[in-house]
Amino acid sequence: MRFVTAEKDNRTFIGVTNEQLSYVLDLTLADKTKHQTAQLPATMIECIELGEQFLSLASSLEQWIIENPDQNKFKYQIDDIKLLAPIPRPTKNVFCIGKNYKDHVLEMGSEADLPSDPIVFTKPPTAVIGNEDIILNHKQVTDELDYEGELAVIIGKKGTNITKKQALDYVFGYTIINDITARDLQKKHKQFFIGKSLDSSCPMGPVIVHKTEINNPNHLNLQTKVNGEIRQKANTELFIFDVETIISIISKGHTLEPGDIIATGTPAGVGKGFKPPRLLQPGDQIEIWVEGIGVLRNTVEH
Amino acid sequence: MRFVTAEKDNRTFIGVTNEQLSYVLDLTLADKTKHQTAQLPATMIECIELGEQFLSLASSLEQWIIENPDQNKFKYQIDDIKLLAPIPRPTKNVFCIGKNYKDHVLEMGSEADLPSDPIVFTKPPTAVIGNEDIILNHKQVTDELDYEGELAVIIGKKGTNITKKQALDYVFGYTIINDITARDLQKKHKQFFIGKSLDSSCPMGPVIVHKTEINNPNHLNLQTKVNGEIRQKANTELFIFDVETIISIISKGHTLEPGDIIATGTPAGVGKGFKPPRLLQPGDQIEIWVEGIGVLRNTVEH
Repeated sequence: MRFVTAEKDNRTFIGVTNEQLSYVLDLTLADKTKHQTAQLPATMIECIELGEQFLSLASSLEQWIIENPDQNKFKYQIDDIKLLAPIPRPTKNVFCIGKNYKDHVLEMGSEADLPSDPIVFTKPPTAVIGNEDIILNHKQVTDELDYEGELAVIIGKKGTNITKKQALDYVFGYTIINDITARDLQKKHKQFFIGKSLDSSCPMGPVIVHKTEINNPNHLNLQTKVNGEIRQKANTELFIFDVETIISIISKGHTLEPGDIIATGTPAGVGKGFKPPRLLQPGDQIEIWVEGIGVLRNTVEH
Repeated sequence: MRFVTAEKDNRTFIGVTNEQLSYVLDLTLADKTKHQTAQLPATMIECIELGEQFLSLASSLEQWIIENPDQNKFKYQIDDIKLLAPIPRPTKNVFCIGKNYKDHVLEMGSEADLPSDPIVFTKPPTAVIGNEDIILNHKQVTDELDYEGELAVIIGKKGTNITKKQALDYVFGYTIINDITARDLQKKHKQFFIGKSLDSSCPMGPVIVHKTEINNPNHLNLQTKVNGEIRQKANTELFIFDVETIISIISKGHTLEPGDIIATGTPAGVGKGFKPPRLLQPGDQIEIWVEGIGVLRNTVEH
């Protein structure tokens, strides 16, 4: 299943959508209509916390809508709603992996920068925006705004000291993140946080695809276009640290929780990697496609 | 006023305490008893969000308790309750400043490491524990657990691009943080996050002191003892970047919110700074005193 958080008439709801993202079924409204007491939690994180129960509830609501003669009450065309980030307000910072594709490490530096252990930094919940939301250009703060297309992992259950072998059991699903980076701030402040944390610097979505629909997260094509031109083209098989390793290493002595989000790093082709650099300009449109998930599209403020 | 979040008979409440931390007044219970509909929010973050209204409500409840003939119903001796971290579950990672005292930079490296701009990293909400809680020794994950006594700032209202001049208007109050660090992990993973984020690595408390009781956050004595022996002894006047600068720089293009927590960095005298290093051992007791706030005391798991 493919889950969204969306808004219609100022009401936020949990929905399911199809691969083409052409329509959305309103699970929240269906739940309220079908059941005397609502069974579906209000937020995606709470839904994920429900585990298997959420999946079976979502399935039965989807079925109920499809079989409902009044189906259109719960089924919206995509243009009639606003997609939010699937997790609009994470309850902690988004975990991000740095330098996780060799070619990207080389475009930004040299062989000496290849990490022997995962590099982890974070982006705050205030940075999260949804598909089609505007990325602020932050002209007064940075001259070097850059894009980074990434596969992101959504954690499904609580765990500490998770082994690589168990790691995918702890995954709920996958989404896409644009790890927008102010290169000048990233460099100036040494630790990455400041340069990674500007408001609107964490576009996320458009959907969370449940893990059952992704055969292998370490073998997915990924492509980033800016104004229609391909800038990043890679496959997650090029990860230096695969999803299992990342989960296992972060969780050593550190409890991961349902709804935690891990952006897995970006491949070669970021703006700063070009000679001369091709950084983001006002009005630029960025589209990140990850195989099996879809396209995350955002435009930089004019 | 000096605020706490505490627990009694499995019920969490907001309280006020005295400078000696000898008793706590249960504002939550007083509020429920005095008012037909509760006016005091359940969590410290929500209280802080109320702004001035929280302060006047807390004052009037405190007065009501003191004048109440049945006062002891709302007044507990400190030994009869359990203090939690004043903000037991932050809604985003704790902001931390690295290398903010010259002598600490030098004990860990050299003049070349002195930052020209604040270094910012984070600790996740899962790391937060309260006063007197046990710090896990994480024997299987690290051989180099270290302490870092720090003044922490609690943000009181939402703001972006806050000027230095305005900065203290955005502060709610102050507390103490022990920025527990796994030195080996901090080094191995390059970015500080992994080494700073182990479960129980963010002891916080015991109280939040409202800013009106702190004349100048950039002129406070600070002292860390391990098993009674003084290891860190400094004054925040030695900050490389003062509280106003930190708030101003983090908030450039980045919205700060009520309840955000900023640990301001640690002075010289951490375990790793000694030759040979004097890292934390099972059973060690760490006491961090900050002038005007109190003592944060925690013991490392045996």
